[in-house]
Amino acid sequence: MGMDPTTPQVACFEAGIKFGSLYHQFAGTPVSPDSADSLAAAIEEAIENQPHCESVTVEVREAPLREAIAAAGADYTELTGRFLDVSMVIDYEGCVVETSMAMEDGYPLMQVDSVSE
Amino acid sequence: MGMDPTTPQVACFEAGIKFGSLYHQFAGTPVSPDSADSLAAAIEEAIENQPHCESVTVEVREAPLREAIAAAGADYTELTGRFLDVSMVIDYEGCVVETSMAMEDGYPLMQVDSVSE
Amino acid sequence: MGMDPTTPQVACFEAGIKFGSLYHQFAGTPVSPDSADSLAAAIEEAIENQPHCESVTVEVREAPLREAIAAAGADYTELTGRFLDVSMVIDYEGCVVETSMAMEDGYPLMQVDSVSE
Amino acid sequence: MGMDPTTPQVACFEAGIKFGSLYHQFAGTPVSPDSADSLAAAIEEAIENQPHCESVTVEVREAPLREAIAAAGADYTELTGRFLDVSMVIDYEGCVVETSMAMEDGYPLMQVDSVSE
Repeated sequence: MGMDPTTPQVACFEAGIKFGSLYHQFAGTPVSPDSADSLAAAIEEAIENQPHCESVTVEVREAPLREAIAAAGADYTELTGRFLDVSMVIDYEGCVVETSMAMEDGYPLMQVDSVSE
Repeated sequence: MGMDPTTPQVACFEAGIKFGSLYHQFAGTPVSPDSADSLAAAIEEAIENQPHCESVTVEVREAPLREAIAAAGADYTELTGRFLDVSMVIDYEGCVVETSMAMEDGYPLMQVDSVSE
Repeated sequence: MGMDPTTPQVACFEAGIKFGSLYHQFAGTPVSPDSADSLAAAIEEAIENQPHCESVTVEVREAPLREAIAAAGADYTELTGRFLDVSMVIDYEGCVVETSMAMEDGYPLMQVDSVSE
Repeated sequence: MGMDPTTPQVACFEAGIKFGSLYHQFAGTPVSPDSADSLAAAIEEAIENQPHCESVTVEVREAPLREAIAAAGADYTELTGRFLDVSMVIDYEGCVVETSMAMEDGYPLMQVDSVSE
């Protein structure tokens, strides 16, 4: 039998929504080292619009981005998780959730880092 | 001070990821009454690929879809939340989370319906 | 019977690709008056990465954006065509195509404004 | 000095819009061999809604999809151009444009195959 969610559980749900939104809204965007900063800034400000979203920090990882572009003999590539470091703070009714996405064993992993009481 | 997340909290985070992914991957897709069923089926099967996602049910709400198309004097419109009813079951390490998105007061609301122990 | 495309026809095809990319990559992005400028800048720089794309100018139309947000009693909304003015210059093998998207009769219309010889 | 576009040029512009739309709407979608058919069907029907679009044929290329999933030790991956074969017919005011996207030298290439008079 399921129970109604607690406030911290809803806070984690809200945090997940922001991560899924961020990833699937912007994955596929054409990106190069020159355009990486404006994209990171836009992602941060776009997702911070969403409810309960205190702050979003996005960094485009320049080394793997340059490698992927060089390997393809291209000038740009498409944004995907391995080019991103993201951290986010959600505050839902006073419960603060810290989350991040970073590379682990070669794959981007979204995780909850901490939940306040 | 933040604590490590509990299993039910991570399960809710995973549920949120799926909702954000679903919404921001498919919002904006050209949709008409004739193409609604294939889109709903594709959304279900695409999101069910994601980790810990037991089942996804998507229904395109035909009445508001037809109204929006008629009001615009068009043949199709772009998918957005008010044309969708979604329910989803996440199972993360044995913790089952039921979630849904439906219209409330004129806006699509994503919510956690229940969390198992 | 179909013929091989001419250079100006391919230039117009390339211009269309950029418009479809721009629209469907960024439609659905959470946007508010405060985040409109960073989003416009990111769209410009992202699409300028694409081949044969000389320049992209994006302006978020603040009046309809503010009206939509106020009408919804919200703090932000989702990006869609009626909040955007876009102009773009494509140069394909010396053939320059100027294109734009703007509101016409209440709908966003993408069009070719001129093709050089 | 630029000239007004001809009907075949506008037809090619319209064809480009559909390709950019298709790619950037659906790139990033979670996809596996089991969900490939429903996704291909939804893409076809969604893009066929757009103006002047006579037909869209999408095939997910199963061999590279299976290889990418196996190489990642995963159950699914994200849709990108190298998993897609697409052909499309646009009819704009009687001018028929045939276009396709397929792999060339390791990269997905969108091209105009023929333009009718």
